[in-house]
Amino acid sequence: MRKRITRVAVMTSGGDSPGMNAAIRSVVRSCAYYKIDCVGIYRGYQGLIEADFISMNARSVHNIINKGGTILKSARSKDFMEKEGREKAYNNLIASDIHALVVIGGDGSFTGGMVFNKEFNFPVIGIPGTIDNDIFGTDYTIGYDTALNTVVDVIDKIRDTASSHNRLFFVEVMGRDSGFIALHAGIGAGAEEILIPEEDLGLDRLLDSLQKSRRSGKSSSIVVVAEGDKTGKNVFEIAQFIEKNLPEYEVRVSIMGHMQRGGSPSCFDRVLASRMGVKAVELLLDGKTNLMVGSVNNEMVAVDLELAVKEHHAINKEILRISDIMSV
Amino acid sequence: MRKRITRVAVMTSGGDSPGMNAAIRSVVRSCAYYKIDCVGIYRGYQGLIEADFISMNARSVHNIINKGGTILKSARSKDFMEKEGREKAYNNLIASDIHALVVIGGDGSFTGGMVFNKEFNFPVIGIPGTIDNDIFGTDYTIGYDTALNTVVDVIDKIRDTASSHNRLFFVEVMGRDSGFIALHAGIGAGAEEILIPEEDLGLDRLLDSLQKSRRSGKSSSIVVVAEGDKTGKNVFEIAQFIEKNLPEYEVRVSIMGHMQRGGSPSCFDRVLASRMGVKAVELLLDGKTNLMVGSVNNEMVAVDLELAVKEHHAINKEILRISDIMSV
Amino acid sequence: MRKRITRVAVMTSGGDSPGMNAAIRSVVRSCAYYKIDCVGIYRGYQGLIEADFISMNARSVHNIINKGGTILKSARSKDFMEKEGREKAYNNLIASDIHALVVIGGDGSFTGGMVFNKEFNFPVIGIPGTIDNDIFGTDYTIGYDTALNTVVDVIDKIRDTASSHNRLFFVEVMGRDSGFIALHAGIGAGAEEILIPEEDLGLDRLLDSLQKSRRSGKSSSIVVVAEGDKTGKNVFEIAQFIEKNLPEYEVRVSIMGHMQRGGSPSCFDRVLASRMGVKAVELLLDGKTNLMVGSVNNEMVAVDLELAVKEHHAINKEILRISDIMSV
Amino acid sequence: MRKRITRVAVMTSGGDSPGMNAAIRSVVRSCAYYKIDCVGIYRGYQGLIEADFISMNARSVHNIINKGGTILKSARSKDFMEKEGREKAYNNLIASDIHALVVIGGDGSFTGGMVFNKEFNFPVIGIPGTIDNDIFGTDYTIGYDTALNTVVDVIDKIRDTASSHNRLFFVEVMGRDSGFIALHAGIGAGAEEILIPEEDLGLDRLLDSLQKSRRSGKSSSIVVVAEGDKTGKNVFEIAQFIEKNLPEYEVRVSIMGHMQRGGSPSCFDRVLASRMGVKAVELLLDGKTNLMVGSVNNEMVAVDLELAVKEHHAINKEILRISDIMSV
Repeated sequence: MRKRITRVAVMTSGGDSPGMNAAIRSVVRSCAYYKIDCVGIYRGYQGLIEADFISMNARSVHNIINKGGTILKSARSKDFMEKEGREKAYNNLIASDIHALVVIGGDGSFTGGMVFNKEFNFPVIGIPGTIDNDIFGTDYTIGYDTALNTVVDVIDKIRDTASSHNRLFFVEVMGRDSGFIALHAGIGAGAEEILIPEEDLGLDRLLDSLQKSRRSGKSSSIVVVAEGDKTGKNVFEIAQFIEKNLPEYEVRVSIMGHMQRGGSPSCFDRVLASRMGVKAVELLLDGKTNLMVGSVNNEMVAVDLELAVKEHHAINKEILRISDIMSV
Repeated sequence: MRKRITRVAVMTSGGDSPGMNAAIRSVVRSCAYYKIDCVGIYRGYQGLIEADFISMNARSVHNIINKGGTILKSARSKDFMEKEGREKAYNNLIASDIHALVVIGGDGSFTGGMVFNKEFNFPVIGIPGTIDNDIFGTDYTIGYDTALNTVVDVIDKIRDTASSHNRLFFVEVMGRDSGFIALHAGIGAGAEEILIPEEDLGLDRLLDSLQKSRRSGKSSSIVVVAEGDKTGKNVFEIAQFIEKNLPEYEVRVSIMGHMQRGGSPSCFDRVLASRMGVKAVELLLDGKTNLMVGSVNNEMVAVDLELAVKEHHAINKEILRISDIMSV
Repeated sequence: MRKRITRVAVMTSGGDSPGMNAAIRSVVRSCAYYKIDCVGIYRGYQGLIEADFISMNARSVHNIINKGGTILKSARSKDFMEKEGREKAYNNLIASDIHALVVIGGDGSFTGGMVFNKEFNFPVIGIPGTIDNDIFGTDYTIGYDTALNTVVDVIDKIRDTASSHNRLFFVEVMGRDSGFIALHAGIGAGAEEILIPEEDLGLDRLLDSLQKSRRSGKSSSIVVVAEGDKTGKNVFEIAQFIEKNLPEYEVRVSIMGHMQRGGSPSCFDRVLASRMGVKAVELLLDGKTNLMVGSVNNEMVAVDLELAVKEHHAINKEILRISDIMSV
Repeated sequence: MRKRITRVAVMTSGGDSPGMNAAIRSVVRSCAYYKIDCVGIYRGYQGLIEADFISMNARSVHNIINKGGTILKSARSKDFMEKEGREKAYNNLIASDIHALVVIGGDGSFTGGMVFNKEFNFPVIGIPGTIDNDIFGTDYTIGYDTALNTVVDVIDKIRDTASSHNRLFFVEVMGRDSGFIALHAGIGAGAEEILIPEEDLGLDRLLDSLQKSRRSGKSSSIVVVAEGDKTGKNVFEIAQFIEKNLPEYEVRVSIMGHMQRGGSPSCFDRVLASRMGVKAVELLLDGKTNLMVGSVNNEMVAVDLELAVKEHHAINKEILRISDIMSV
């Protein structure tokens, strides 16, 4: 019989995302609410191996809900890929009398958690924190909504100068395997075209479409490109192709980069993170493990970690249609 | 047999909300996509009575997706409450060969639409545009997400000064009959207490709770109050009661007011408005009427206008629990 | 002969303003640069009396340049008004081997500093930190530029809803004795009228002017009112007078309140604070006292503290003219 | 004898900058105030050659003070470099009975204006609108303050992720010949190092300085690089050099690009633009020509256009010192 959980550890792992602090705060306060101890682990799995721990209470997370980044820092850990590293990690947890682990991160972090659970039968719950929204089993990941607002805000600024100069802008946004940011921010920003990994538009169709919209009287245009779009070309190559074939436009490229990971989280992400942190602690108190907290149809649910990692979070086809209709 | 719809009118009515322009743009572009005409009506039902119309095409809504307010303006119309006014309105629609009406607004506006439909059998579709999120049949109304971010952003600023001075702030937000903004923005802003119309906390329990949090070491606190909270007192009376009974704090009041209605819409609201506009036009083309477009479990659905107006959009009880746990 | 200064204390006092943290950071890093010690005093003069001190080095002020509020907190101190309190304060400074004091605040705080210097011959340098810009001897105070952006951003939002509804908004901003915020933010926000303490427009002239602009075709208007404007009436009384006499408009009132003190400082305020902190430390190292750092014609200067407190920072008459011309 | 000016034209030319609309508004309203006509010219000198004119009055510039970009659009004109093009331009002005020209732009635009004035003795006044602040004769150009806030806001976001991951970020900002943006935004963002065209730090000194700060305990760092910095290398080459020699850091590069030109102008830029527009019209009414409006020591002044174009706007050496002290 598993013993009752009275001390929980929480960490952030992998790429950071806005709202991770709100999630840490929620885990810590939920522990306080249920009168169990909470320990913060610095720098993800690497800090777990190095026993870089800090005891946390409700006051330790005062005034962090609005802060970007993560107060527990994040890191990638090569050592955790080795059995030896994971054994150290386990011993550290046992030595500190920690009974369960909450991992806030993306699928790489969850994979680590599953392996760890399998080897040591140690309770692990995942909370999806990544701007890419590419995790199966949840409608939204923490940080995605904020990243959308950041992208839309930047494209609004770019459009100011684009429409002052009759320019065609290519804006690259994050999303190596997933077009969520490109598609939603592209619609939100009123982009004329959106290129995503899930759909192969083809450069000729892109050119055709831009030519048509130019003829229809559009004097400036924005094309949003996900890092890993299906054309197999990067944003500079795409831009060059179009510039050569559509000389009426001055073409410019903008790479949004890491700013997409930062900034004060949106209210949506703060509330989502708060709900997920509570659910994670309650799952552990219920004796559950190897699950990820998901938000499905606006309810907090538990998803198998393995499913969350293996399955693909598919784009809603309806949204692709909306994008076509809006750029009529 | 109803004749095929080839000219649609769109208006904004009642209190404005961020994203109304994105909804107008979507209706106009959907009409263009389906190759039917679109007419904009200025100033809601009043403009309908005065035949204050403008022909719109895809280019008329260029560069408005990011603008707050409504380019079609809004108004309340006493004349439309009279049969005579509505007859004028109907005659204007017929005279301009308009076959259907899309009304972007709240329940007052939808009630007007239903009456009009009943009297003249004129096709009407509603799109929920209000910051209050108080409409039954949709998880989200257009403008609500933006208003949450505006409120959270302001409370973040107030918290700077509150925590510099050990102060207790009462912040009044919109929501005469509905605690959606107060509850979600309160959680997002990390408020210590949230007072909403749906739940009667009682002043004594509020005092008790603030005293406890003061003793637990909190040096500053934020209380978010919905306009119409259940205590029956306004925010100044509540603040005075607490100040008298908790002299350790300097108490301050802040009324957020109309700024909550303005600002550039969030990406969430822009995408929501884009989806709803398409759905509204497609419902009309399918021969439907007397419906409101809703977003339920992230799908666009059609709700009976009568239901949307009559039923109450209830707060999710889980969110109330989250609020309690977070202010532990 | 005064001994060489090797340990400096820094505090924030009075109402907080954005950029105070940047000023603290600059004082601390300037001390590190000149290889002298730096001590932070919590809660202004009250913390001085209670010896609420913390040793600070270059790392203690890491990542605070962008934070609103003040990490040293601020307070008003009744005890410091008494000789006994000031003696305790002096003894605490001597006991901690502190040789000089940098006070970041407004004229109340500077008056305290002058009295203290007179009584104990203790070196004091002031840095003007207040959103009101009402300090003589400096073109800009720290926090003023940020407050202007905050006000303009809010009025931009209010204008969205004002122009959607043909409304007349009265917006009250801070400035009990000084119209700097109202005048500059009013021009920046495109306000139709601006009421400031320095100039008595008179309600009749206000009414006349609003009537004229209404007739000229303006469908919505914003009037910015400083808290202490010369009409002798508060913003609600002014609004009522206009509403009675100009029934064509729906009149609304908005009180901006304490949010004006918060928020991440603008680049202007961060650079200003950085420059002022350096100058303050260099003045002390030069053996100077009883001075305030000012920014005059974009150079850092030293002003007599007594002058800074006694004299009035006058509004530039040219700016009043600009306001008239812009609302033509 | 020059005839009295009763019709003025205004254009925006060259790269756009936030606040250009506020400047247009001010020129138009100043004309209305002085009861003279105002004509807007689209797309700078190209629109002048094509007689792309629009008559403007006080209402035409309603609600544009807060908009980025330029409602008159901007362009570069090859035709205006030819005598023939300029003759067409002159004839168009005469045909429309326009007596003077206000050019809002940078030094390229002013050079065009000077040539035009020399050839046709046509009154020309310049208003400095560029984000680079690289114009001699004015402390500030319109758009510079806004660009600083945009850059600082983005670096604040990047710092969130940098400090979550112990990363070293190189951020490239605009400024081909001028370090104003890099230096001031670098200080405002708390950058550890700032590379500008005016000063050759040298890669070895940069490496040395970053190594020292790493040893002193800094776990993340931001280096701001102006496009045209003196190292002669671009930001990627610099980053590679450092990465090779300082392997303790993960190095990342971010190019801010065109977003720096967009966005709603800051209050500072709106007020500056309003003052400059008034001054420009008043100079013309006084019979002046070939001048640029400057803001010197917070007063509006007139500078010889030739000087403005030929001389270099030098960085304030004190600010360089501040930057060194702040990164101690």
